[in-house]
Amino acid sequence: MKMVLAAIFLVFSLFTFSQASVVDFCVADYTAPNGPAGYSCKSPAKVTVDDFVYSGLGAVGNTSNIIKAAVTPAFDAQFAGVNGLGISTARLDLAPGGVIPLHTHPGASELLVVVQGTICAGFISSDNTVYFKTLKKGDVMVYPQGLLHFQLNGGGTQALAFVSFSSANPGLQILDFALFKSDFPTELITQTTFLDAAQVKKLKGVLGGSG
Amino acid sequence: MKMVLAAIFLVFSLFTFSQASVVDFCVADYTAPNGPAGYSCKSPAKVTVDDFVYSGLGAVGNTSNIIKAAVTPAFDAQFAGVNGLGISTARLDLAPGGVIPLHTHPGASELLVVVQGTICAGFISSDNTVYFKTLKKGDVMVYPQGLLHFQLNGGGTQALAFVSFSSANPGLQILDFALFKSDFPTELITQTTFLDAAQVKKLKGVLGGSG
Amino acid sequence: MKMVLAAIFLVFSLFTFSQASVVDFCVADYTAPNGPAGYSCKSPAKVTVDDFVYSGLGAVGNTSNIIKAAVTPAFDAQFAGVNGLGISTARLDLAPGGVIPLHTHPGASELLVVVQGTICAGFISSDNTVYFKTLKKGDVMVYPQGLLHFQLNGGGTQALAFVSFSSANPGLQILDFALFKSDFPTELITQTTFLDAAQVKKLKGVLGGSG
Amino acid sequence: MKMVLAAIFLVFSLFTFSQASVVDFCVADYTAPNGPAGYSCKSPAKVTVDDFVYSGLGAVGNTSNIIKAAVTPAFDAQFAGVNGLGISTARLDLAPGGVIPLHTHPGASELLVVVQGTICAGFISSDNTVYFKTLKKGDVMVYPQGLLHFQLNGGGTQALAFVSFSSANPGLQILDFALFKSDFPTELITQTTFLDAAQVKKLKGVLGGSG
Amino acid sequence: MKMVLAAIFLVFSLFTFSQASVVDFCVADYTAPNGPAGYSCKSPAKVTVDDFVYSGLGAVGNTSNIIKAAVTPAFDAQFAGVNGLGISTARLDLAPGGVIPLHTHPGASELLVVVQGTICAGFISSDNTVYFKTLKKGDVMVYPQGLLHFQLNGGGTQALAFVSFSSANPGLQILDFALFKSDFPTELITQTTFLDAAQVKKLKGVLGGSG
Amino acid sequence: MKMVLAAIFLVFSLFTFSQASVVDFCVADYTAPNGPAGYSCKSPAKVTVDDFVYSGLGAVGNTSNIIKAAVTPAFDAQFAGVNGLGISTARLDLAPGGVIPLHTHPGASELLVVVQGTICAGFISSDNTVYFKTLKKGDVMVYPQGLLHFQLNGGGTQALAFVSFSSANPGLQILDFALFKSDFPTELITQTTFLDAAQVKKLKGVLGGSG
Repeated sequence: MKMVLAAIFLVFSLFTFSQASVVDFCVADYTAPNGPAGYSCKSPAKVTVDDFVYSGLGAVGNTSNIIKAAVTPAFDAQFAGVNGLGISTARLDLAPGGVIPLHTHPGASELLVVVQGTICAGFISSDNTVYFKTLKKGDVMVYPQGLLHFQLNGGGTQALAFVSFSSANPGLQILDFALFKSDFPTELITQTTFLDAAQVKKLKGVLGGSG
Repeated sequence: MKMVLAAIFLVFSLFTFSQASVVDFCVADYTAPNGPAGYSCKSPAKVTVDDFVYSGLGAVGNTSNIIKAAVTPAFDAQFAGVNGLGISTARLDLAPGGVIPLHTHPGASELLVVVQGTICAGFISSDNTVYFKTLKKGDVMVYPQGLLHFQLNGGGTQALAFVSFSSANPGLQILDFALFKSDFPTELITQTTFLDAAQVKKLKGVLGGSG
Repeated sequence: MKMVLAAIFLVFSLFTFSQASVVDFCVADYTAPNGPAGYSCKSPAKVTVDDFVYSGLGAVGNTSNIIKAAVTPAFDAQFAGVNGLGISTARLDLAPGGVIPLHTHPGASELLVVVQGTICAGFISSDNTVYFKTLKKGDVMVYPQGLLHFQLNGGGTQALAFVSFSSANPGLQILDFALFKSDFPTELITQTTFLDAAQVKKLKGVLGGSG
Repeated sequence: MKMVLAAIFLVFSLFTFSQASVVDFCVADYTAPNGPAGYSCKSPAKVTVDDFVYSGLGAVGNTSNIIKAAVTPAFDAQFAGVNGLGISTARLDLAPGGVIPLHTHPGASELLVVVQGTICAGFISSDNTVYFKTLKKGDVMVYPQGLLHFQLNGGGTQALAFVSFSSANPGLQILDFALFKSDFPTELITQTTFLDAAQVKKLKGVLGGSG
Repeated sequence: MKMVLAAIFLVFSLFTFSQASVVDFCVADYTAPNGPAGYSCKSPAKVTVDDFVYSGLGAVGNTSNIIKAAVTPAFDAQFAGVNGLGISTARLDLAPGGVIPLHTHPGASELLVVVQGTICAGFISSDNTVYFKTLKKGDVMVYPQGLLHFQLNGGGTQALAFVSFSSANPGLQILDFALFKSDFPTELITQTTFLDAAQVKKLKGVLGGSG
Repeated sequence: MKMVLAAIFLVFSLFTFSQASVVDFCVADYTAPNGPAGYSCKSPAKVTVDDFVYSGLGAVGNTSNIIKAAVTPAFDAQFAGVNGLGISTARLDLAPGGVIPLHTHPGASELLVVVQGTICAGFISSDNTVYFKTLKKGDVMVYPQGLLHFQLNGGGTQALAFVSFSSANPGLQILDFALFKSDFPTELITQTTFLDAAQVKKLKGVLGGSG
């Protein structure tokens, strides 16, 4: 039986060899050109299990800052293995009172799982409805693509959440940074947001914006 | 020759009949269920050329308002013919000083063509770079999907632009409306944007927000 | 200022009203037809924040079984809010010695985050390379779409992981169940897998397969 | 061993039950609404193996007609099982001298395999380059999406080919039928094709066009 | 307040730096390889607002030719900023009597907006139905992907339209050019279109075709 | 007429030249980087009809082996012309008693056409239902993406089938090879499949697996 079955090796090994370029995956090669669908693929011969494992989310983020929060991304720019696979993740740490300010992900829907503590989370839809709720450990919330959303730790203990995205490259646009940590001219901001110039200048001063 | 060729009719007409359900297009049937890919399709037998033509963008929008501007959409909700085709459009009218406030389209990239007047247009990227320029008649600008952008008529004459989108249902989230014309609680707004409560309340008063 | 700004309400409210059917999201209506892109959309008027929150992953799964493990899914069939958004999630509980047997998700890539304990996880590629590693708390691993993979708790403590998928409907095909918990005729199994009939019958006996 | 393993049944059966709506496939239900992504799905409980098998391509098509050819499609409108799966097929029979006239598939690329005889096949690209070759048994040719192409049996024996498409609903626009078997007004045809009116009227006479 | 808030800078700047490769957009780098999804991306550091603005559509096209019309494209090959964004545009100028001959876009649906004059526009579906209408200023028409369509200025004044596409690379196959401005052998044309050889030769003579 | 029409050449040739980079297709350039969407594109100037034709499926595969079967693929790695077009093919030869063992295509649905002989073919769905049937010449069967399936020649004559895939790079994971022709440690296999170690070792011996 063994001798006979061994012949399989011949026909299929030819077959498998001719498939050498098959891409089940496309681990990012950061040294080659990237395109609209993601980074170029690393040679399969150089791929190891470590390309599919990311250990950068294991440590608690530093929340000793004004927002009392930290975001640690594992997008395709950090985690080569997710390139082209339509998924990525990030770790959120929120100290009591911590907040992830209003932001959007231009290229992905997001799904949040609370792992520790409680988090008040919400988003705003195109028709200006605000959907928000205080989530407890184990709760999951989904934010549809591109909509403004936030997370806030209103509880008394440290909170931890993992979020995942429907893209390896979801993008991240933090509203306050877009307005007040950029060189967006104050006059244009007031014209396009109706905010008072004083308010704009105050926040630019804090966040380091110019113009 | 005529007699012989006429026989084509037989074989192909059978073929075409069996294709009765082929969908080159899927004109929206607003009375049937819709799904993630768009509206259900109207019966092909009821489709006419008028399903593919939209005349709602012919008139100048009413700019006698505080933003001195008007947006008239032809998305799949208004223009049944674009359903499922990955494209839609809108008309922008801006009186001198008019502005389309900061907004995003969560589900599409946008392309603007200036047809009359001049428009100062811009967007902000994820890394907080502001790209803006004053466009003249015939200029085209593209806004990548989901990013904050604006249009403003800084010129002395009425401006007109047509915009198109890479989706039949691009969505539209106007920043000021999301914050100040909704029931987003003021306390949550200040916590997630760092705006002063007084500023928030002032704009809520104007725009009709509550909370 | 207030009076003047108030006029915005008029022009934009017309605009927003005409957008009544805009779908930022498409919460599943399980009572209407579904299609290749997912379930039909629930009427936006009936959508609440609870459609976007799922609390079914909060409890520890029951691991008092032979695999000493439990999988609790939050796919579109369980979590209406993810319908059409290209993302979903599941909770994995593994007691010491617990295992999620070899399986595939035909329609999605998967990303696993270890929240508690250690997990030995791996997948096999098309060229028959096995990529596996023991992951510790906070480690992330990605499994490319459709490939055989497994998770196993080789440690001495209970393990917990959350996984997410690049589809709201990733599917799940467990190898042993496909072969031995189905009515797949034994003769066809042996012919298409080279397993011995005795082995097949033994596992069918255990798992409840017939044929 | 048997008793212990049997416990798997409990935990997984619960799991599988909760997945009742999972769609590995979406067999077309022609009685429910269709949408941009295809037909609604038949209830999984009513699906049988016969939904995934199509026997309509087994017989030789009738080539006793002027084009000496027959096309037998198995698109989603004929073959319910391919709905939503991004693939479909058709059978081509060409008697000696038979021809499938110039046509396009608006929604798919096509791949042809010659099973019997020889076929002269070709397509024209956007830059007006004509790519054509006489294919023999076993040869494969691919036609990029939406481009004009043709098949012609220049050999002395009956030819048979199977073609497949990168869509369950590729569409089919036969040039001659679009122009001469429709009610496209002759004046518009001559203006938009530069063909002589006499030529247009002659072919309309043969193919049954009006206008 | 200022001092405290300033600390945000620290935590987020780290975050933003690690995102250096995020692609909100992928401006075409014409010097690097392109792939099925478009051109390689220009280094973000070299991107300016001018990459997102195209001024090539501002001038009236030269209509002093036989078709009394001009098409000026702004596809990804001309307008680097639209690369990968799923949208592009073109300008159509039609003098009185001008015509854009029957053509298809193999890779995109098209949306036309009449900006000046009147245009008789139409398309033909797979079932050989002709949908056409005379459009006036401000009217919009949509052409489903891959179908034959035309535009014709039957009015007495110059007409101008802007068209947009659901792809950055829609392609363009002009029927007359494919047949009569190529080296498509006359014998193959007559066999696959049923046109008379004399008609084919006449138009090849005019348009410069060979074969 | 000729002189006048000739002027078309001028306006359109400019147009066509500016389109030099248009990609109707993207023939694989195996020497340049590949990415998630496929291989880089060969320069259009170097493309010939032979890039779109593949002759490697013309010969009967060698079935003088233990499975009495042969699979000959024409994926993007073998057939440069299908790169980026979402379709590919393969030839299956099965001698009497021949079998294509249980396998999946992680990235595509498959459509099989029986060209000669009879084939018993089937697949297993996520809910462990086995769909199988004996197909005769001309029958077509579709296998939804990523599900385990097999083909088996239970008849007395040689069988031939052509299969096509909804991707240029469908992938291929043969169950037995993943388990027994790899270096998957026997202990992990028994833990994740419940197969007996003796069975695993026996098949590893035959197929050449290690570990």
